[in-house]
Amino acid sequence: MSEGTRRVRADALESFVASVFAAAGTPAADAGTIAEVLVWANLRGIDTHGVLRVPGYVGRIESGEFNPRPDISVVAELPAATVIDADRAFGPVGMSRGMEIAVAKAREAGIGVCIVRRVTHMAAIGWFALKAAREDMIGLVFGSSKPNMAWHGARARGVATSPIAIAVPGKAREPILLDMSTSTGSMGQVMFARDSGTPLEPGVALTERGEPTTDAGAARFLTPLGGAKGAGLSLMFECLTGVLVGNPLIATALGPEGDWRHSQNGFALAIDIAAFTEPARYRQDIDTLVDALKALPAAGGQDEVGVPGERGYRVMAERLESGIPLPAGTWRRLAEVAEGLCVALPAVVEG
Amino acid sequence: MSEGTRRVRADALESFVASVFAAAGTPAADAGTIAEVLVWANLRGIDTHGVLRVPGYVGRIESGEFNPRPDISVVAELPAATVIDADRAFGPVGMSRGMEIAVAKAREAGIGVCIVRRVTHMAAIGWFALKAAREDMIGLVFGSSKPNMAWHGARARGVATSPIAIAVPGKAREPILLDMSTSTGSMGQVMFARDSGTPLEPGVALTERGEPTTDAGAARFLTPLGGAKGAGLSLMFECLTGVLVGNPLIATALGPEGDWRHSQNGFALAIDIAAFTEPARYRQDIDTLVDALKALPAAGGQDEVGVPGERGYRVMAERLESGIPLPAGTWRRLAEVAEGLCVALPAVVEG
Repeated sequence: MSEGTRRVRADALESFVASVFAAAGTPAADAGTIAEVLVWANLRGIDTHGVLRVPGYVGRIESGEFNPRPDISVVAELPAATVIDADRAFGPVGMSRGMEIAVAKAREAGIGVCIVRRVTHMAAIGWFALKAAREDMIGLVFGSSKPNMAWHGARARGVATSPIAIAVPGKAREPILLDMSTSTGSMGQVMFARDSGTPLEPGVALTERGEPTTDAGAARFLTPLGGAKGAGLSLMFECLTGVLVGNPLIATALGPEGDWRHSQNGFALAIDIAAFTEPARYRQDIDTLVDALKALPAAGGQDEVGVPGERGYRVMAERLESGIPLPAGTWRRLAEVAEGLCVALPAVVEG
Repeated sequence: MSEGTRRVRADALESFVASVFAAAGTPAADAGTIAEVLVWANLRGIDTHGVLRVPGYVGRIESGEFNPRPDISVVAELPAATVIDADRAFGPVGMSRGMEIAVAKAREAGIGVCIVRRVTHMAAIGWFALKAAREDMIGLVFGSSKPNMAWHGARARGVATSPIAIAVPGKAREPILLDMSTSTGSMGQVMFARDSGTPLEPGVALTERGEPTTDAGAARFLTPLGGAKGAGLSLMFECLTGVLVGNPLIATALGPEGDWRHSQNGFALAIDIAAFTEPARYRQDIDTLVDALKALPAAGGQDEVGVPGERGYRVMAERLESGIPLPAGTWRRLAEVAEGLCVALPAVVEG
């Protein structure tokens, strides 16, 4: 651990974060959901999507961008699909509701979709896909957002680093969980490089003028995964969400409106495994598939072959045991928020 | 055009290919579908998925891998999803049926899925997605196949170069059509490099031992797009199709069964735009989005910014006018097939 890092137990950290959001104006149940999703990211080692977001989220309540008491409403209701307007709800609140609806639809129709309009930052979207997998469903989630990634063939922002997550349940094994952005790298890597004064890997980031850079200070937006392919997928996520439900994000930003205000749209799909096959068999077949991949010869220098999500489960086991490490900067910023809202900081693990 | 290349008009080529498959035993309507899909790929400039496949397809009827007279049956019927068993039908036949079913389901339920089990080579899957877009739907198609791509972190085949295609309709503009594999390059590039004696781009292909190579002769399988991301997407396509409908392809190949016989599974999703928004508005918003991207400053050396599918429409306009160029080798192999089946070759465009 680097100088000044504190370790905090997951349950204590989750209670603390829930108290912060409750104090900032969200209903208790919503505060609990936001806290659970953020701390889950820390538990899995995705610290860029964890509690370091808390001060920013609180600030965005104050600025009016995030709505702590949204009036979430149903915009369209179809046999296998629902559109909800999230009224600028926190991402974890809106998308969790979305996946619950998709799962309920899937129980009736075999598959179910919920498109969540006008939600805000979704945090780690794997959590929503995993929510479906915990109920013997396949969960698939993606989102759209304001441009922060180059359009392939252009030297400017044109699409977002929009993520996709897919989860399927195993039997003895944990669910396979793919959670990836459509960009080469991540803004988290840029933030980390800025904080640590290290250079970025080549090919990940671009300057304001769209020129390649390894200088995190000069990095302004990211490159798409595989050029045309990552950019294309991200564009289609916008066509499948924002454009379809009346909250287009790319054209409004790039066009004459110049609207760059924060907003997101999400797509949650659930597939009811029991409608297609015996769930026990499916789970067994997933384990067999994972076993087959893990039995392949590992590439040079590696001890074993991994599968999507596996590293996160290992980090989680370790962090549930020994606590979540919070760097000095994160701890300081959390302390400032806690003081402002009169919330007690969580206990630090000794040793 | 290189030495010995013939140009053939698209309609003449399509009639010829339909006659070949009819002579090889497929019903006339199916032969027409196969011909349409293959010639469409040539028209768009995707020659690796065009009529050069004809001799291989005919051979696979003779070997019993492709079934010219399949008994396609419904395996599961749910309000928003259907599973069909394609009985080793030709990919264009099975997947076009699949997308028709998905579109019909979407008209009832808002969205519709058809999972197509035990189909064979799908050719250019963009065609099936576009079929939905031509009916005011969003079309999304992906497939799973036997491993021909490295699993990330392994030095062996673990997943397939499985493609995904998504199409959305525009108003004055042609539909946006994304059609991409989950690999860095394509087997088509390897074939082309072999034929032309040129080296492969670095990072695209691996030898039998899983070592990087630029020698097309030594290339045996491909690298996944962006490492873990492309490999992960391909794995999830198998979990969403093969494993779900009882035709797992990866575990049966890699496991003790060692079953590497050709088989594919497909996933066709249709979203009925009219259930979510006014189709005219959607189409207009897609045009506006494309206009916004095309107005971005082009990257160095390029004249304009492109969008997915655009190049294919241009090649199509040119080839509809002047014919489809068939290299000497392709023409020779088509002539052999034609002779064997007593089918007349198509007329060659003069000049």
